[in-house]
Amino acid sequence: MTYTIEELAQIVNGEIVGDPTTSIESASTLEAAVPGQIAFLANRKYRKTVATSKASAIVTREPLETEAAQIVVPDPYFAFREIVVHIHGHRDHLFEGISPAAHIAPTAQIGQNVRIAHGATVSEEASIGDDCVLYSGVFVGPRARIGSGCILYPNAVVFDTVEVGDRVVIQCNASVGHDGFGFATHQGSHHKIPHIAKVILQDEVEIGANACIESGAFDDTIIGAGSKIGDSVVIGHGTKIGKGCLLVPQVGIAGSAELGDYSQMGGQAGITGHTKVGPHTVIAAKSLVNHNLPGKQGVLGFPAFDMAQARKSVAIYKNLPKQREKLMALDRKVKELEETIAALKQATEAS
Amino acid sequence: MTYTIEELAQIVNGEIVGDPTTSIESASTLEAAVPGQIAFLANRKYRKTVATSKASAIVTREPLETEAAQIVVPDPYFAFREIVVHIHGHRDHLFEGISPAAHIAPTAQIGQNVRIAHGATVSEEASIGDDCVLYSGVFVGPRARIGSGCILYPNAVVFDTVEVGDRVVIQCNASVGHDGFGFATHQGSHHKIPHIAKVILQDEVEIGANACIESGAFDDTIIGAGSKIGDSVVIGHGTKIGKGCLLVPQVGIAGSAELGDYSQMGGQAGITGHTKVGPHTVIAAKSLVNHNLPGKQGVLGFPAFDMAQARKSVAIYKNLPKQREKLMALDRKVKELEETIAALKQATEAS
Amino acid sequence: MTYTIEELAQIVNGEIVGDPTTSIESASTLEAAVPGQIAFLANRKYRKTVATSKASAIVTREPLETEAAQIVVPDPYFAFREIVVHIHGHRDHLFEGISPAAHIAPTAQIGQNVRIAHGATVSEEASIGDDCVLYSGVFVGPRARIGSGCILYPNAVVFDTVEVGDRVVIQCNASVGHDGFGFATHQGSHHKIPHIAKVILQDEVEIGANACIESGAFDDTIIGAGSKIGDSVVIGHGTKIGKGCLLVPQVGIAGSAELGDYSQMGGQAGITGHTKVGPHTVIAAKSLVNHNLPGKQGVLGFPAFDMAQARKSVAIYKNLPKQREKLMALDRKVKELEETIAALKQATEAS
Repeated sequence: MTYTIEELAQIVNGEIVGDPTTSIESASTLEAAVPGQIAFLANRKYRKTVATSKASAIVTREPLETEAAQIVVPDPYFAFREIVVHIHGHRDHLFEGISPAAHIAPTAQIGQNVRIAHGATVSEEASIGDDCVLYSGVFVGPRARIGSGCILYPNAVVFDTVEVGDRVVIQCNASVGHDGFGFATHQGSHHKIPHIAKVILQDEVEIGANACIESGAFDDTIIGAGSKIGDSVVIGHGTKIGKGCLLVPQVGIAGSAELGDYSQMGGQAGITGHTKVGPHTVIAAKSLVNHNLPGKQGVLGFPAFDMAQARKSVAIYKNLPKQREKLMALDRKVKELEETIAALKQATEAS
Repeated sequence: MTYTIEELAQIVNGEIVGDPTTSIESASTLEAAVPGQIAFLANRKYRKTVATSKASAIVTREPLETEAAQIVVPDPYFAFREIVVHIHGHRDHLFEGISPAAHIAPTAQIGQNVRIAHGATVSEEASIGDDCVLYSGVFVGPRARIGSGCILYPNAVVFDTVEVGDRVVIQCNASVGHDGFGFATHQGSHHKIPHIAKVILQDEVEIGANACIESGAFDDTIIGAGSKIGDSVVIGHGTKIGKGCLLVPQVGIAGSAELGDYSQMGGQAGITGHTKVGPHTVIAAKSLVNHNLPGKQGVLGFPAFDMAQARKSVAIYKNLPKQREKLMALDRKVKELEETIAALKQATEAS
Repeated sequence: MTYTIEELAQIVNGEIVGDPTTSIESASTLEAAVPGQIAFLANRKYRKTVATSKASAIVTREPLETEAAQIVVPDPYFAFREIVVHIHGHRDHLFEGISPAAHIAPTAQIGQNVRIAHGATVSEEASIGDDCVLYSGVFVGPRARIGSGCILYPNAVVFDTVEVGDRVVIQCNASVGHDGFGFATHQGSHHKIPHIAKVILQDEVEIGANACIESGAFDDTIIGAGSKIGDSVVIGHGTKIGKGCLLVPQVGIAGSAELGDYSQMGGQAGITGHTKVGPHTVIAAKSLVNHNLPGKQGVLGFPAFDMAQARKSVAIYKNLPKQREKLMALDRKVKELEETIAALKQATEAS
C-alpha cells in the first residue's frame, strides 16, 4: 500500500514543500531510508544528514534545501509519529478470545473482548477490563484489578491487589507488586516486613521489560498517569511517581521517595530512599539524587547538583592533574619569592 | 477484626503510654495513617511528622508528646513488624496441592504439603522439600535441590544442580544458576566456558525479582544464610556473599569476588571481579569497590574510598570552579608580587 | 571417568612438565581444587596461589615451581577451556522432541531435531532452525526467525520479526524485540512510537539472563556476530553492536548508538543515545560514554575520558581536601609576603 505526501500532510495539518504526489510506502530514519520512505528531522543537530539521505520525503520544522518532498509542521517528531501510526499501525496481537489452556480462576471477572493466551493465569477475584490482551505466561494475582485496553506481554507478573488503570502496557518479564526490599533487622537477623499496601499504575502508564515495581509495605507505590518506565527500572516500595514522567532504562528509585510530575531521568540514574524531588526535574544519565530538590531544575553528578555548575566541575575534574601542577609550580614560586624577600630585607636592614 | 493497644503491647513486651483500650484495625505509616491505624517512629529524623499524624497509636523508642496511644520498646521498627505480622499476617498463597497442569518429572522428589501451580516445571531428579510453594511458570532444573518452606514466585528459574536451603524466597522472574559471563577469548572469538560448579543459596536467603545469580564456572557461587538480595541485582559466577548481608536493588558484583558477613550495599553499587571485601562493610549507593577492603568500614565513591574522606572530596568537587578561580587569582597576585619585588630589588641595588 | 595428563595435553598441543600419567577426574580453580583436579594459571597476578593449590595438574604459560603436573601452552585459559569441554562437556538438555503441551502455531516452521518443552510458544509464521532447544515458558513471536543450533532458556521472550542467527544462546527471562523506550511528547503527553524495525542477533551471539534488547523503532537493532551480552544488560532501539564485543552484566546502551567491533564494556557501564564508539574500545566498569570516540582506546569515568588521564584525576580527587589545604596555606603565605613587601617598600622609600 502506498500513500501520497498530500494525503500524509493532511493527517498532520502540514504544509507541503515539493511534489505533493510523491509516493510513500513506509517510514524510516534519515540515515537508513531508501527511496519510497519518509523520514523526519526534529533535532537541528542531525541537519547535515539531510544532504545524504535517500528518503523520498522528510517531516521538518522548517523547509530544507533538498530534493526530497517535505511536510512542514511545528512538531515534526510527533507529526512523524502520527504518520507512522497511519502507515504501519500498532502491533497486531495474533490471537483471539480466551485460550482453553489459560488458567482463569472461577471467581475472576473478565470483561468484553478480552484475549488471554495459553498458559496465562488470572487468579481468584482478579478482574480484567474490556479489550485487554494477556500474552502467554502472564500472571495476574488474587484480587488484582486491570482496567480496560491494557496489554500484558509474555511472562509479565502482576501480584495480589495491584490496581492497574486503563490503556496500561506492561512489557514482557516485568514484575509488578511483589514484596519490596523491606526487612526489620533485629539481633543480626533480617525479618521480612509483610507488604500490606499495593501498587497503583494509573491510566496510560507503560512498564518496561524486566522492570520491577515493588509493592508498598504500609503505603502504596504509585505510578502517575501517562508516566513511562523503561526496561530494568526498579521502583522501591511506597514510592510515588507523578504524572507524565519519563524514566529511561535501568533507572532506580529507592523506597518512600517522591518524583514530581513531568520529571525525566536519564539511563542508570538513581534517587535514594525518602528523597522528595519536585516536578519538572531533569536528572542526567547515571546521576544520583540524594537530597530533596524543589523541581524545575536540571541536575547532574554523583551526587547530583545543578547541571550548569556540575558541567563546570566535570571540566575541571578532567584537568585536575594540570591544576595540581599549577599549584605546585605556584608553591615553588612563592618559596623563591620568600627567599628573595628575605635577602632583600636583610640587605635593606643592613644598608 | 480489631486489637487493643494492651494486646499489641503484650506481643512485643512494650510499655503503654496513653489509653490501653485504644482500638486498632490495621497498620500504616505516620504520614498515611488514618484513625484506627498504628504506625511507628524509628528514626528521629521523622519526629516532626508525629504532630500531624492521624495514627491512633505509635510504636516508639521514647514517649512522644502526642494524643495517640504509644507502645514504647527498645527496637520500634522490629516491634512494629511483629505487630504487623500479628494483625495482617504474611501473604496467602491461594492454591492447594499439585496442579495436574504442573510438569513434574517422574524422577523428581516432592516433599509433604507442597503446592505447585499449573505450568510450573520440576525437572529430572530435582527435589522439593516439605511445605514449599511453586507458582506458575516456575522452572526447577535437573538435579536442583530445594529445601523446605521455600517460596518460588511466578516465572522464577532455578537451574540444574542449584542447592537451595530452607525458608528461601525467590521472587518472580529471578534467574538462579544459569551460565555466568564466562568466555575464553582466542584469536578474536569468545568461547563459552562450561559452568560446572553450582549456586548455593543458604537458609533464609531472599532473591529479588528479576535478580540474576550466576552459576559458578569451576567454583560455587554462594549466598550466605539470611542474606537478602534486591531486585535486578546481578551476582557473578563463583562469587561468595557472606551471612546476613543486605544488597539493595540493582547492585552488581562481578565474578570470583567475596563480600564478608553482615555487609550492606546501597542501590546500584558494584564490586569488581576477584575483589575481596571484609565483613561489616557498608558500600554507599552507586559506589564502585575496585580493590580489597578489610571490613568494618563505610566507603563511598567511584571508585569507593573511606566514607568520611569521600564526603570531603564530594564537597570540594562541587566547589572546584571557585577553587580554580582562587588558584588563578593567586597566580595573578604572585606575578604582581614578583614585579613589585623585582622593582624593589632594583631600587635597593640602585640606592 | 579419569584422564591422564598425556591425553589432555594432546588435545591442546601442550608440553608436559612432570608426570604424564597423572590422573585427572575433573576441573577446578587453583584455590578450590582438590587432588585429582586440574586448574589453570592465566594471570601472573594469581601466581602465589600455585604454592598452596592442591590441584594435581595446572595449565600454564610457563613452567611453574610446583609438584603438580603441568601442561604448558601459549594460551592457558583457552587450553583449560578446551580441557573442561573434553572432561565435562556442555550442559545436557534433558528433554527430547516437541512436547504435546507446547503451543506451536500451525503456520510455524520447525526444523529437524528440534526440542521444544511444555509451555513454550512458537507463534504464527515463526521459524525454528534445526537442532534448536526451546525450554518451557519460552515465547517466540509471530514471524520471528530462529537459526539452527540455538538454545532459548526458560521464559526467554523473542518478539515479532526478530531475526536470530545460528548457534545463538538466549538465557532465561531475557527479553528480545519488545518495543523500545520511544515516545513522541506532544502537549505534555507521551505517545507511543510504533516499533516497525526489528532486532537482528547474528551468529554465535549470547544474550544474558534478564537482559533486554529493544526492537528498533525505524531502524534495526543489531548485535554483531560472536558478541556476548551479560545479564540485565539493556540495549536501546536502533543501536548497533559490532562483532566480538563483550558487554558485562548491567551495561546499558541507549538508543541509536553504535559500538565498534571487539569493544568491551565493564559492569554497569553506559553509552548515551546517538553516540558512536569506534572498534577496540575498552570502557571501564561504571563509566559513562557521552560523546563519540574514535576507537582503540581505554576510557574511564563519569563522564568517561582517556583511561590513563582519568586515573590521574581519580588519584587527585581522593586528595582534594589536602590540595585545598595547600591552596589555603599558599593564600595565607602570599598575604604575609604582601605585607612584608609593603613594609619593605615603605622602608625603602623612606630611606
